[in-house]
Amino acid sequence: MKTDHNCFPAPVYAKTVLEPLFEQSIRHFAKVTDRINRAHVVMLAETGIVEASVARAILEALDAYDRETDTESLRYDGSVEDYYFHVEQDLIKRVGVDLAGQMHTGRSRNDMGHAMFRLVLKTRLEHLTAGLHDAVGALLAKAEAEKRTIFLAYTHGQPAQPTTFGHYLAAFIEVLLRHGERLWLAHRHLDRSPMGAAAITTTGFPIDRERMAELLGFAGVQENSYGCIAATDDVAAIYAALKLLCVDLSRFAQDLGQWTAFETGFLKAPRSYVQISSIMPQKRNPVVTEHLRLLSNLAAGQCDAIVDTMRNTPFMDINDSESETHTAGYQAIDRGQRGLRLLADFISVIEVDEVRIRAAIGDSFATITELADGLVLSDDLSFREAHEIASDLAKDSIAARRSLDEVSFDRFVEIFETRVGRSPAIDHGMLRRIVSPEHFIAVRDRTGGPADVSLNASLEHYRSYLQSQRNDLARAVARRDDAAAKLDQSVRLLLQDQAA
Amino acid sequence: MKTDHNCFPAPVYAKTVLEPLFEQSIRHFAKVTDRINRAHVVMLAETGIVEASVARAILEALDAYDRETDTESLRYDGSVEDYYFHVEQDLIKRVGVDLAGQMHTGRSRNDMGHAMFRLVLKTRLEHLTAGLHDAVGALLAKAEAEKRTIFLAYTHGQPAQPTTFGHYLAAFIEVLLRHGERLWLAHRHLDRSPMGAAAITTTGFPIDRERMAELLGFAGVQENSYGCIAATDDVAAIYAALKLLCVDLSRFAQDLGQWTAFETGFLKAPRSYVQISSIMPQKRNPVVTEHLRLLSNLAAGQCDAIVDTMRNTPFMDINDSESETHTAGYQAIDRGQRGLRLLADFISVIEVDEVRIRAAIGDSFATITELADGLVLSDDLSFREAHEIASDLAKDSIAARRSLDEVSFDRFVEIFETRVGRSPAIDHGMLRRIVSPEHFIAVRDRTGGPADVSLNASLEHYRSYLQSQRNDLARAVARRDDAAAKLDQSVRLLLQDQAA
Amino acid sequence: MKTDHNCFPAPVYAKTVLEPLFEQSIRHFAKVTDRINRAHVVMLAETGIVEASVARAILEALDAYDRETDTESLRYDGSVEDYYFHVEQDLIKRVGVDLAGQMHTGRSRNDMGHAMFRLVLKTRLEHLTAGLHDAVGALLAKAEAEKRTIFLAYTHGQPAQPTTFGHYLAAFIEVLLRHGERLWLAHRHLDRSPMGAAAITTTGFPIDRERMAELLGFAGVQENSYGCIAATDDVAAIYAALKLLCVDLSRFAQDLGQWTAFETGFLKAPRSYVQISSIMPQKRNPVVTEHLRLLSNLAAGQCDAIVDTMRNTPFMDINDSESETHTAGYQAIDRGQRGLRLLADFISVIEVDEVRIRAAIGDSFATITELADGLVLSDDLSFREAHEIASDLAKDSIAARRSLDEVSFDRFVEIFETRVGRSPAIDHGMLRRIVSPEHFIAVRDRTGGPADVSLNASLEHYRSYLQSQRNDLARAVARRDDAAAKLDQSVRLLLQDQAA
Amino acid sequence: MKTDHNCFPAPVYAKTVLEPLFEQSIRHFAKVTDRINRAHVVMLAETGIVEASVARAILEALDAYDRETDTESLRYDGSVEDYYFHVEQDLIKRVGVDLAGQMHTGRSRNDMGHAMFRLVLKTRLEHLTAGLHDAVGALLAKAEAEKRTIFLAYTHGQPAQPTTFGHYLAAFIEVLLRHGERLWLAHRHLDRSPMGAAAITTTGFPIDRERMAELLGFAGVQENSYGCIAATDDVAAIYAALKLLCVDLSRFAQDLGQWTAFETGFLKAPRSYVQISSIMPQKRNPVVTEHLRLLSNLAAGQCDAIVDTMRNTPFMDINDSESETHTAGYQAIDRGQRGLRLLADFISVIEVDEVRIRAAIGDSFATITELADGLVLSDDLSFREAHEIASDLAKDSIAARRSLDEVSFDRFVEIFETRVGRSPAIDHGMLRRIVSPEHFIAVRDRTGGPADVSLNASLEHYRSYLQSQRNDLARAVARRDDAAAKLDQSVRLLLQDQAA
Repeated sequence: MKTDHNCFPAPVYAKTVLEPLFEQSIRHFAKVTDRINRAHVVMLAETGIVEASVARAILEALDAYDRETDTESLRYDGSVEDYYFHVEQDLIKRVGVDLAGQMHTGRSRNDMGHAMFRLVLKTRLEHLTAGLHDAVGALLAKAEAEKRTIFLAYTHGQPAQPTTFGHYLAAFIEVLLRHGERLWLAHRHLDRSPMGAAAITTTGFPIDRERMAELLGFAGVQENSYGCIAATDDVAAIYAALKLLCVDLSRFAQDLGQWTAFETGFLKAPRSYVQISSIMPQKRNPVVTEHLRLLSNLAAGQCDAIVDTMRNTPFMDINDSESETHTAGYQAIDRGQRGLRLLADFISVIEVDEVRIRAAIGDSFATITELADGLVLSDDLSFREAHEIASDLAKDSIAARRSLDEVSFDRFVEIFETRVGRSPAIDHGMLRRIVSPEHFIAVRDRTGGPADVSLNASLEHYRSYLQSQRNDLARAVARRDDAAAKLDQSVRLLLQDQAA
Repeated sequence: MKTDHNCFPAPVYAKTVLEPLFEQSIRHFAKVTDRINRAHVVMLAETGIVEASVARAILEALDAYDRETDTESLRYDGSVEDYYFHVEQDLIKRVGVDLAGQMHTGRSRNDMGHAMFRLVLKTRLEHLTAGLHDAVGALLAKAEAEKRTIFLAYTHGQPAQPTTFGHYLAAFIEVLLRHGERLWLAHRHLDRSPMGAAAITTTGFPIDRERMAELLGFAGVQENSYGCIAATDDVAAIYAALKLLCVDLSRFAQDLGQWTAFETGFLKAPRSYVQISSIMPQKRNPVVTEHLRLLSNLAAGQCDAIVDTMRNTPFMDINDSESETHTAGYQAIDRGQRGLRLLADFISVIEVDEVRIRAAIGDSFATITELADGLVLSDDLSFREAHEIASDLAKDSIAARRSLDEVSFDRFVEIFETRVGRSPAIDHGMLRRIVSPEHFIAVRDRTGGPADVSLNASLEHYRSYLQSQRNDLARAVARRDDAAAKLDQSVRLLLQDQAA
Repeated sequence: MKTDHNCFPAPVYAKTVLEPLFEQSIRHFAKVTDRINRAHVVMLAETGIVEASVARAILEALDAYDRETDTESLRYDGSVEDYYFHVEQDLIKRVGVDLAGQMHTGRSRNDMGHAMFRLVLKTRLEHLTAGLHDAVGALLAKAEAEKRTIFLAYTHGQPAQPTTFGHYLAAFIEVLLRHGERLWLAHRHLDRSPMGAAAITTTGFPIDRERMAELLGFAGVQENSYGCIAATDDVAAIYAALKLLCVDLSRFAQDLGQWTAFETGFLKAPRSYVQISSIMPQKRNPVVTEHLRLLSNLAAGQCDAIVDTMRNTPFMDINDSESETHTAGYQAIDRGQRGLRLLADFISVIEVDEVRIRAAIGDSFATITELADGLVLSDDLSFREAHEIASDLAKDSIAARRSLDEVSFDRFVEIFETRVGRSPAIDHGMLRRIVSPEHFIAVRDRTGGPADVSLNASLEHYRSYLQSQRNDLARAVARRDDAAAKLDQSVRLLLQDQAA
Repeated sequence: MKTDHNCFPAPVYAKTVLEPLFEQSIRHFAKVTDRINRAHVVMLAETGIVEASVARAILEALDAYDRETDTESLRYDGSVEDYYFHVEQDLIKRVGVDLAGQMHTGRSRNDMGHAMFRLVLKTRLEHLTAGLHDAVGALLAKAEAEKRTIFLAYTHGQPAQPTTFGHYLAAFIEVLLRHGERLWLAHRHLDRSPMGAAAITTTGFPIDRERMAELLGFAGVQENSYGCIAATDDVAAIYAALKLLCVDLSRFAQDLGQWTAFETGFLKAPRSYVQISSIMPQKRNPVVTEHLRLLSNLAAGQCDAIVDTMRNTPFMDINDSESETHTAGYQAIDRGQRGLRLLADFISVIEVDEVRIRAAIGDSFATITELADGLVLSDDLSFREAHEIASDLAKDSIAARRSLDEVSFDRFVEIFETRVGRSPAIDHGMLRRIVSPEHFIAVRDRTGGPADVSLNASLEHYRSYLQSQRNDLARAVARRDDAAAKLDQSVRLLLQDQAA
């Protein structure tokens, strides 16, 4: 072995660790590094920790670096430890070591790193949340459009009771809106600035942590300085929330697979979503539902990979919560977003085949429970009697291979008379009406039920719930944009001073 | 095979599925089943769906069952499908099938099941949350007591900078308080009544879902009726939140392991927590930290087991989200609670060995950065010069095997003069002071820093944050107790009517 | 707080840690502890490390303890640390501290603990493996019985091609046999004795590790003594293997759910496996498939919980790999076994509904690809021409709502003539035959195909593969039983010596 | 929305699904697709299914495509579904649709896909296994070099007993060798060809599956044709095995962190592996151990992500087991490999600081148990007496702040006399020797112990165990290379026929 192990870094270390980290920095963190540098210099100048002239010199050097460097084309060459030092080296070349050194006053790579990770993750989380809102929006539009479209709801994989497609979708909308809340709590915890924690205990310099938070667009300061560096729960919580969302996306994808299946056929994907076999023209593979399941599921697993990285790591500044982990996590977010986008688009164009649904309702006797309930009211029977009549009728019709809408009124009367000893009060038309899906749905008008009045109220709730989530997001994005403008302005002011 | 497969249940099905489910019901759900039965009868009577006399008969029969049955001694005998039918059979025996049947009007085993799971889980979650509050309380008390006790904070497993033990604990307190918020959001989503969803679409009977929610102590109604049965996110979210908490407990346990280690010895467990070897009297195994790590970690994994059970299950009523899963989850909660209790007690009795900590600070030159910063101010040096002097001094002392508090002032002057060309402005006393941990901490008075003023403010924030979380919990528990009283009173009123 | 923290144990430690551990010992480890004690004493006597008289005294005391103690009724009272010390205390009372102390010569609680964990886990693994073999046996019997029964195989959730039910089952049998191999590799690694590792470095006493392994029924000695205590991969590997098995069980359960679904109905559960609704007599809930999915899935998650407990724990003797973890793992094994038993029984009694399957084959045009292939041979067409004719015919029939077995021969001739410009060589009967499932299957006679010759060969392979796995298991069980007999005999010999 | 949903693909589907899949194909699967195409054409020609002239035409067209296409620069343009169709389109352009179509005779995208995934994964697995062998090799070399270097082994995070560094490493070597076996079982199951399964039931054409396996370098044919497409256990098993390995790497990293910690300092990283702070010259951050922990842990989580993607997916051909999942899995393998490479290099250059280790042995009284054992032999004491003397001596020395090698002989004699009532038989030199680490180690000569004779035997076992694993791997790689040569030759022969 000819390697000189008195020199840092060992070639294997450079190859397996430092080079990948450098590439991650180039790809994901160069822009925010620059932004943090500028904000820090502004704050140092404002608090008088560095003189305005020093601040100006540094800011101009940062500008020059920015103009002259094609970051994306940088390659790791082992001459410095990481991207931070690469920028510092450049600065030293431009303004000398004394001035360049002052940029790092009252901070450390630790607080910078976590500020950087949070800024990037926060933006990604905001995009993901917007994607979730769009999916909910698409589902809500579909639910509104199909709020009276008859559907057949299942339990344990088997047909159970009629409802409307809008009511069915509303169940999932409610779930997604709760996920929106969960993501937003995670966002709130992430939205705190670690800058000023320095290595771990803040600094003796009179820095202004609140001002740094403002210039970087954070909602405020992350309080305990050791926690700024050591805590990983803020990041883990985002992936835990995304995982929960993805698990539900995978469940809904499983439903969509069933509704679009050959045998069920309640939903029909348009041609644009169907992969067709050249030889089997009848074969329609709506593999889109498989892809939705897969994307959700893979994202869910990748979320776990992030959270589980933290198990049993000591609660202190650790590499395990830094670049390699963060960039691996972005893939989970990307997949989650692909899934949401696919869901939003697919649900918008899917068509409901009410003919097949009505046939399935008839075949599965899904409204039969309502006949029993109806007889209690119409014919003043006990529940037991009513249920027995309904049950006899069902058995009889199944034996005769008749679906519920083909049930014979005469046979019904016969059964009734045998059981009760008199003729039923209801006539043929009433029987038909009672076992119709429309009747079944119309009487279910309790809170959260499928009847028009209930579902309309629910959809209205969900719309305003969604709107309120969208408003929260919009405010956060506005604060972010506003901070960027403020920072630019502060830099410009400092540079103008010089010009003056 | 002699088994008659025309009879339900198949012996293997009874043994592998029905019997375990029955035992879970007996152990965990019998009490809430009864409560739901009573509340439902009260609501049915109040809404006039069943007559008061019927309601009375049923309530009296439930009372009689309760008096006469030793639930815990019940064993599954295959005669009924599950515990629900066991109770129904008893009721039929007591009041006849027509009356007994009316108890089930406008509901289903589906909404009952989920109401039951939520009530039990909610109570367990409240106990867990109380356990978390107690742990935070214990940590806060310790942090207050040790807020000026010198400690040595680490990065990357290596000594880094002095702080106080209170400041260190505060970092973890902040994390735990965020976990409190997460658990509480999960509680809020769980705290909705599914009763009235019936099978999945509500019912045609004019039931009062809001009243049921009130009688059962829920904060309100879970809206969409299909979602009441199909959604599993509310339950999954609890285990996701608990997992996050457990991951951090395992991390903190890893720290405690380090602080109590033979070589580090910053913390000392009292005799009551130390397993000792009979032959090696010097050996002190504070395995308590291992147990904390293990309990947290095993609980974390068991939380995942619950969430992952839902992956790719269809979004509809499924057994996968019912009894077997719920009861498996309770073990995670139990382990989490054991961990929290252990942490709260152990942290209260642990002793800080400031002598060893100060020695480690000296040996690790943990305050040396402050010397450089100090020289910039005292001697008007550039950062670079100051750092070079500090660095030379450190190297020199290490070579001479001197710790930082034994640093030679003469050597310092020598180094200073060589680098700067003049004598330093600071004297021996000032040098000592600058490199003392007390000075290091005192100047770190920014938001979230270890200096007295900062840490006092932080501890005050955490106390009020904890108090507010405790208030939320107390309100929820009060509502629960209040509902139990209301239900008892309503039952009594109904029964008194009869007496009158 | 009045607790005296100078006394071990702290009440909270006793409650949250020591008591649960004691209960786990009582329930799971008392018997093997005794067995290890006896084997160790025998080995100590055989090697002359303790005198025969001492060995006899100890063995008699162990016998006496065994006779006089109702282990199950023991409760933790805080007087000793754990079950090990409880037994030791008893021994001291019986034979005095000097003699009692000799039992522990050349061993430690460390090697004893791991020996105990391995013995219990090995037996459980053997039962699990037997359960897997039984499930494979049941599947093989069904596959043999239904090897010519027409089935419809799916891709992407949609009907694809005919096969036989036996061929379909064979696919899963092959998977399960691979799982058998995986479990058995895990068994092989587990089947090594850690006894003699003592605390971690073996001992200075001339113990005989190989003899201990033999007396305990291990296949041999676990070599490196530190690894005997520190390594956890042997245990983790068992849960990793079980998880893989469970994931496949959950996938197969998902298939079974589809085949027994209302719309598909290829398989029919007997009455003994169907939960029926009293009011909806048509409703058949074969929730057994849900339970199989759930049991498998929950077990899979619990397996992860065990493996993940080891993440980032130091590689040394740790509590994290001991009693609490082991006993938690048993639940995963139990659930896995319940799932296997359910599968074996359910698959044996399930009925195949060939009428519905044939209808689905016709409706889904699943044999149409064979028509194209057939025309290439019969009419010497190019693939392209043949495929275009098949495609035209399919489109046409679908438009006319005809299933494949109702396809009009006249229409076929018309299409053929239009495309090719002459009449087809095949006649009506040949067309029917070509598109029949029987033909489709019969020509697929390559290795692993569904044709009789191929499937018979496969089933024969699987039978002998299973038999070989069963033989391996039988040998391991025999060795275990044999060792128990050897130990008893050795003990008896030692005690007889005394009598003589 | 202006999108025409009568045309495939929907823009969102193209963007979120098809484009990523195409890019994955370009990057990972283009080469093996080509190889499968050629092998299939060779087999079709050999079996006479296509004529030699047709085969030649296709092979020439594939050559031309290969020469003229810069695969890496291809971008997805929505004109075809996937890369397979892209190649087919090109072929059609070159040789016409009738000839081009014949290439696909007797196969399907299904068996091609899985063949392609297996070939790529197998190669990656072989590289990973080689990486594991190299790591074991490096550890073995170190263990051999340091087989007599005194080390201090820990239990429960606390110093326990002396051993040698070689013996300690041997414990982990044994673990890694077992992982080698696990990976290799996974390799064996993966090493079967699915070609010929066609869509799922093989084909009516007289293809030769065994020949295809041979031409592709598989060890044989995957038997059941449905299983070739539906089974995912072969792939899952690889990630399960890798996860187990990674969990142990993370545990060993945790140990390395402890040995290189400031307070422990048993191991010293060379300068090439130490990140140093410019201001804190004493601070040595061997973050390499953190990176090893992180890489292992993240890889472990990503392995789970792959396995868990399969949970509850139906057991049939599914997208969930295809390109997106496979390519995500490669990241886990890459990270595992980086970890192994880092470990191998780092362990080779690490230095053992025996001075610090001996000091720690003395300070922790780690050899005191041997004194008790020694006194039993030398002075014919009972165990109890011997232990009490050792215990008294330890307590006394600790109180006097003496380490074990500074123990006072006079004090020993005093204690001995008080306890036993006479002078000890051992003299000062003997006492020193008995409590020396050398003696402690030398007497531990049982199987797997640290004594020279034991450790030498163990290392020899491990070397031959490793060599046997390396031989297995070499054979597999040779078969792979050999198959490539065979295929080239067969293609050349076919083309030469034409030339002739």
